[in-house]
Amino acid sequence: MNTFEQNLEKYADLAVRVGVNVQKGQTLIVNAPISTADFVRKVAKKAYEAGAKNVHIEWADEEVTRIKYDLAPDEAFTEYPTWKAKGYEEMGEEGAAILSVISSNPDLLKGVDPERIANANKAYGIAMEKFRSFIQSDKISWSIVAVPSEAWAEKVFPDAPKEEQQAKLWDAIFMATRVNLEDPVQAWKEHNATLQSKEQYLNEKKYQKLHYNAPGTDLTIELPETHVWIGGGSENEQGTAFVANMPTEEVFTVPLKTGVNGYVSSTKPLSYGGNLIENFKVTFENGRIVEVSAESGEETLKRLVETDEGSHYLGEVALVPHNSPISNSNIIFFNTLFDENASHHLAIGNGYSFCIEGGKTMSKEELESKGLNTSITHVDFMIGSSVMDIDGIKADGTVEAVFRNGNWAF
Amino acid sequence: MNTFEQNLEKYADLAVRVGVNVQKGQTLIVNAPISTADFVRKVAKKAYEAGAKNVHIEWADEEVTRIKYDLAPDEAFTEYPTWKAKGYEEMGEEGAAILSVISSNPDLLKGVDPERIANANKAYGIAMEKFRSFIQSDKISWSIVAVPSEAWAEKVFPDAPKEEQQAKLWDAIFMATRVNLEDPVQAWKEHNATLQSKEQYLNEKKYQKLHYNAPGTDLTIELPETHVWIGGGSENEQGTAFVANMPTEEVFTVPLKTGVNGYVSSTKPLSYGGNLIENFKVTFENGRIVEVSAESGEETLKRLVETDEGSHYLGEVALVPHNSPISNSNIIFFNTLFDENASHHLAIGNGYSFCIEGGKTMSKEELESKGLNTSITHVDFMIGSSVMDIDGIKADGTVEAVFRNGNWAF
Ligand SMILES: [Zn+2]
Ligand SMILES: [Zn+2]
Ligand SMILES: [Zn+2]
Ligand SMILES: [Zn+2]
Repeated sequence: MNTFEQNLEKYADLAVRVGVNVQKGQTLIVNAPISTADFVRKVAKKAYEAGAKNVHIEWADEEVTRIKYDLAPDEAFTEYPTWKAKGYEEMGEEGAAILSVISSNPDLLKGVDPERIANANKAYGIAMEKFRSFIQSDKISWSIVAVPSEAWAEKVFPDAPKEEQQAKLWDAIFMATRVNLEDPVQAWKEHNATLQSKEQYLNEKKYQKLHYNAPGTDLTIELPETHVWIGGGSENEQGTAFVANMPTEEVFTVPLKTGVNGYVSSTKPLSYGGNLIENFKVTFENGRIVEVSAESGEETLKRLVETDEGSHYLGEVALVPHNSPISNSNIIFFNTLFDENASHHLAIGNGYSFCIEGGKTMSKEELESKGLNTSITHVDFMIGSSVMDIDGIKADGTVEAVFRNGNWAF
Repeated sequence: MNTFEQNLEKYADLAVRVGVNVQKGQTLIVNAPISTADFVRKVAKKAYEAGAKNVHIEWADEEVTRIKYDLAPDEAFTEYPTWKAKGYEEMGEEGAAILSVISSNPDLLKGVDPERIANANKAYGIAMEKFRSFIQSDKISWSIVAVPSEAWAEKVFPDAPKEEQQAKLWDAIFMATRVNLEDPVQAWKEHNATLQSKEQYLNEKKYQKLHYNAPGTDLTIELPETHVWIGGGSENEQGTAFVANMPTEEVFTVPLKTGVNGYVSSTKPLSYGGNLIENFKVTFENGRIVEVSAESGEETLKRLVETDEGSHYLGEVALVPHNSPISNSNIIFFNTLFDENASHHLAIGNGYSFCIEGGKTMSKEELESKGLNTSITHVDFMIGSSVMDIDGIKADGTVEAVFRNGNWAF
């Protein structure tokens, strides 16, 4: 086995043992593009070795997706098969874990009618509402990992020789996920401990508000009284540990739905539904997005905000030091999984119920009364930089430094 | 576009326009291994161009299947997801067409515990019973086409240089499916007309029995009073024409369940559930299989017969001239779709309801009263050769030649 094969195997092992943390007798659902088959087969092998009863793979193919967007009639985009959504629900109810392998071409949907994309996302969002709640409440173990595709690698390393692009992206991913280290599983234990110490600090401080200051940004975010900061690993309903995103560098919570005021500017491009939105600014009044503008992709951004009522509000506030492995690599991945872990970010749309005390078992109405936003969508966008300062403001008005020049101030 | 690309495109076009004959607004289900993606993408494109509303692809991967057989616990093989079967049913009820792309490695399951395979086939058979009835009654349009895989090509052309094997198998498939001709769609029209003239002749003759004679074979098959011979294209519930198997060279009907007596010897290997059964002999008394023996794969053959009650009886009698393109190529494809069209064959298990007059709309009980066998399985095996004679015996005892020396006698 060469180094690459060894790393690929370590990566599959990490996804199975640390990412979804497969348990004996469990079903593992894997959502994956067919182009990632080499990795997925290794995942299946590791999962069965870890005791999985069944590895259920839902394959997809981007080229077929694009063919459909180009050639199918309009009505094809307003429906999603209910039986498939029910299948996910059934597996979720029986305690399945789910691993999503992403490998997208950031330009896949360039030139596609944005209404078709919006309709498809909406139909999917509505059909998958229940299963999504399993994920967003951490009822089941879930994890997201990435695998290079030719088009993605070319987007990230356009100046590298064609035959080296994918290898370079693999190296960047192995670095970002700590797979290049001797013992990635141990490295993740230590990394999780660091994130959890930040989480603990913030949870003890119980800031009422955060104030963001940077060029193009002057934003105040109020937090729900019972907000909970989360960093590093999670736990599912059964108490099994898992890591939802690999990599993860963030410590995050939910904003008070109606407590966001001011404006914020993006610092990295956002790839949404196959389109890129660049250099955009979002303005809030009492939580609601009242204005958006973008140098490119403005139409896509507007449609995202119009997805439903909840997509007019924020659902996530995430803190990421500018001095982090992904950020230090200076690579723009054109992929949220990586780029969000290089930078402070916010998410338009649904908030995670586990970011409210006792939220995992609350009804939607209870969660809303605590100030949580709900939506069929959840899209992260990046706002951090080396010149961003963040203050924590306590209920008594005390102001404390949380971030200075892009890094943790404590 | 080179010749291969052109042929691939013609093949996809043929599968869509002649095979499943996609109609405007219809859903096309495609069952396909991920290794056949190049062909499947062309099929999707042609299907949308023909007016399909949606192309729903159910991808599979043989390597993952093998990993599961090797590593999963026993209980994983006794269940098949009900929600998935329901999904097929739902799409079928809404009039979807289904194209199966096969590309199997004939040795895929070599060495796998036959009980696991039998259990998996049984669980699948039971879960998919309703959807299978849509196919076996021609309620919906369905078609099967094949695409080479590396392992399959090596099996068929073991002596060709490795890098030429797949191209050779492609050529053989293009030849067998008439894709190598100038206008395959027109060629299929003519071919169907020939098969339909044989069908008509046999339906007018209304033979009560067929008698097979060849070395190792002395078999009498009684036919149901209301049997119907079928050759060439089929028609679905809506009256849309389709071609279920590409290639197809056979004219076939169903035997009277309890009317088969004597013994028959196989003339080609049978690939079943990833295992090969070779040089086998089957003996019948009043329709029931009372003895089987095989030079290799005997255990697999016995398990096939033990699948359920119906798998102890025959469900198909098919006539194929020895002088046919596939037979003349002298290639053993190790794949029933091709090999059955090079040779007379019989099928163990379920009979097609459309081979009984008015059978498409009959209940299972009515069909059984007409002499039709029902089973969760249907497996063809080859018995034809250049030395086989077949007589047709009328109710009044008249004996007429149907086949002589392997070819049509009329
Ligand atoms: Zn985040
Ligand atoms: Zn997020
Ligand atoms: Zn047949
Ligand atoms: Zn058959």
